[in-house]
Amino acid sequence: MQATLISIGDEILIGQIVNTNAAWMGQQLNWAGIKVHEVKVVSDQANHINNALDDALQNSEVVLITGGLGPTKDDITKVTLAKYFNSELVLNEEIWNDIKSYLVKRERPILDSIKSMAMLPEKCEVIRNLRGTAAAMWFEQEGTGKIVMSMPGVPHEMKDFMTRVVIPRLQEKFETPTIVHKVLMCAGLGEAIVAEKIKTVEESLPPHIKLAYLPSMGILRLRLSASGKEEEKIKAEVNKYAEALKTILAPKYIYGEDEELIATTIGKILKAQNATLATAESCTGGLIAHRITSISGSSAYFMGGVVAYSNEQKTNLLGVKPETLAAHGAVSEATVIEMVQGAIKNINVNYALSISGIAGPTGGTPNKPVGTVWIAVGSANSEKVFAQKLQLTQNRDVNVTLSTNLALAMLRRLLLGLL
Amino acid sequence: MQATLISIGDEILIGQIVNTNAAWMGQQLNWAGIKVHEVKVVSDQANHINNALDDALQNSEVVLITGGLGPTKDDITKVTLAKYFNSELVLNEEIWNDIKSYLVKRERPILDSIKSMAMLPEKCEVIRNLRGTAAAMWFEQEGTGKIVMSMPGVPHEMKDFMTRVVIPRLQEKFETPTIVHKVLMCAGLGEAIVAEKIKTVEESLPPHIKLAYLPSMGILRLRLSASGKEEEKIKAEVNKYAEALKTILAPKYIYGEDEELIATTIGKILKAQNATLATAESCTGGLIAHRITSISGSSAYFMGGVVAYSNEQKTNLLGVKPETLAAHGAVSEATVIEMVQGAIKNINVNYALSISGIAGPTGGTPNKPVGTVWIAVGSANSEKVFAQKLQLTQNRDVNVTLSTNLALAMLRRLLLGLL
Repeated sequence: MQATLISIGDEILIGQIVNTNAAWMGQQLNWAGIKVHEVKVVSDQANHINNALDDALQNSEVVLITGGLGPTKDDITKVTLAKYFNSELVLNEEIWNDIKSYLVKRERPILDSIKSMAMLPEKCEVIRNLRGTAAAMWFEQEGTGKIVMSMPGVPHEMKDFMTRVVIPRLQEKFETPTIVHKVLMCAGLGEAIVAEKIKTVEESLPPHIKLAYLPSMGILRLRLSASGKEEEKIKAEVNKYAEALKTILAPKYIYGEDEELIATTIGKILKAQNATLATAESCTGGLIAHRITSISGSSAYFMGGVVAYSNEQKTNLLGVKPETLAAHGAVSEATVIEMVQGAIKNINVNYALSISGIAGPTGGTPNKPVGTVWIAVGSANSEKVFAQKLQLTQNRDVNVTLSTNLALAMLRRLLLGLL
Repeated sequence: MQATLISIGDEILIGQIVNTNAAWMGQQLNWAGIKVHEVKVVSDQANHINNALDDALQNSEVVLITGGLGPTKDDITKVTLAKYFNSELVLNEEIWNDIKSYLVKRERPILDSIKSMAMLPEKCEVIRNLRGTAAAMWFEQEGTGKIVMSMPGVPHEMKDFMTRVVIPRLQEKFETPTIVHKVLMCAGLGEAIVAEKIKTVEESLPPHIKLAYLPSMGILRLRLSASGKEEEKIKAEVNKYAEALKTILAPKYIYGEDEELIATTIGKILKAQNATLATAESCTGGLIAHRITSISGSSAYFMGGVVAYSNEQKTNLLGVKPETLAAHGAVSEATVIEMVQGAIKNINVNYALSISGIAGPTGGTPNKPVGTVWIAVGSANSEKVFAQKLQLTQNRDVNVTLSTNLALAMLRRLLLGLL
């Protein structure tokens, strides 16, 4: 059972927009046990769409088309599909009412040209768009029973059609195996060391359960995937192996499951402890505070942060002693420790995190090359401030993102008493 | 003259990575006057690659292949292409030396398996990789003279091959028209108002010069594109229309050209004035400071910032009066004005920017719904602080990004005396 994805639109071919739709659909289909045979991007031209359809229907049971359903002259997908399936366009009253009420609700004019969007092929099942105006079309090829589904290219509309209609129908029609995934979110340990630690579990996995290592900027996602006919049974199996991995890696290195952000985890812990947090940043320039405040509700525990980019401001805003800066430099253990202490005191919080480093590309010295970063975390309850030196890359953006993630991972371990 | 792009790799089909390569290549080819006929993503399977090649060579003069050139068993592009062009693999000494010195430089082991990467088809022109290990292969189909170029899928390696080899060779071989682009970066004015203002210029454009509006999160890119045979002549024409647009929109709304970031522009102005800057953020939670410090060299003018997320910290770190907060609330003109004044004083800088708003999804009230944001900018030289109210969206991420861009645009206008 294979599917081909066809994305229609000149704006994709000329690179004006990136085809994120195909990636998202590929992921969802893969998880649903449906193999993507090929992705094709073609222009808004009838002969090109026809050729792509011919080829796709030869090689797969399902063809999922996105794009080209708008009200303008460029949008020829619907007319082309109608001809391909020898069908007339007829006014669909239900869709026409949907479109009108959608526009009225948003105080937009109902132009005559928009009515063409309710003209739909009679030989397809028309599926209502709950998030926009262009309806989707579900065709079954005569004789073969192969499916062609045409959806709008607007990502959130397409996603709704996929999860509401396409995936459930295809799973039922083709009796695809259930695919179960579980993702364990790790931080604070390199991929190679994790692999070494969990070697025995990995080697004990049965052939139908796969383990993938997905590292990105200091965060490692361990994904267990299993496929089979009996959903409950494979869920239980995957959970068993997830528990085995957790026994080895949690709580120190596994901070959450299923794409949870580390800032979300930190927020949960702080809320549970009824505790407050402040940040004292230099080289990350505000990114750590931004990550923490990206979580809705963070105002409950995040009181504030300081970006002390100059030495003067490290002293002024955070009380780092000029002698410390003179003796050890801004990128040093002594400085990040005093930054934590200053943030706890000045912002009057339970916990603080600090960071100072040389993000690059300039500013490195033989003793402190580009990529040298110090991070520290501490609590108002204890005089002990934990500091760690990182030796990262030559790339400014990588250093900023990577040290942000590593600092957040260190903060989490402090909050849980795991340092 | 048409090109087909083939991206090889299961990881793209299952959506593990997004095909940003194809978008970038499409853009570059389009700019070089080469039309992209189709983009195909296929799996790491020989028959699938062969079919894609057959089809691509039927419909286009050039086929650009990315991916599948690594040292592992999955990577079958090279072997498949060698067979497709009836060619043997032979050891290429130059490439083998390149690979060895690349690995030695990075202190990585020279494994036996890596030698296979220097085994290359004899019937192609091998092109050295200046940024990695996998060489590229340039084939010319016998009889037709059609081109097949195979490159690694690693984005920065592919980009080097494209700009260094592919684009110049194709432009020469196919005598494509020169395409000239000029992008004007605008901020602080909506698309519709810009369109109204520049209507007469837009209507006067000759057919071979196009103007595109590319809006994103408060930044509007106006792109003039022209194609023709005589490069100097069309460059002069495009410049003429760019100047006409600037006469209307610059300096107030056009801040730069050719994808320049507004944080870069601000950095240039501050450096030229030998002036310093501080930020006082609430709802953007550090994103503005992060944007400013993303620019290498920003430590010359950015002294520091405060993320005053709680009311208490607005008072403590920025000296906002408790009476002001009580009377007007944290999201108010009076508060953002005092935040600017406090930042200038406490961080001892020439200029400061402040922001306070309700990013959402919670925290809105009937008087101050989600999306209400106040921004302000001021200078140490003047008592006048400029404040502006924004009414944005229901979406937290959009509100944070959009208000960041609008605040930076307002800061730029202050620096240039345009407020």
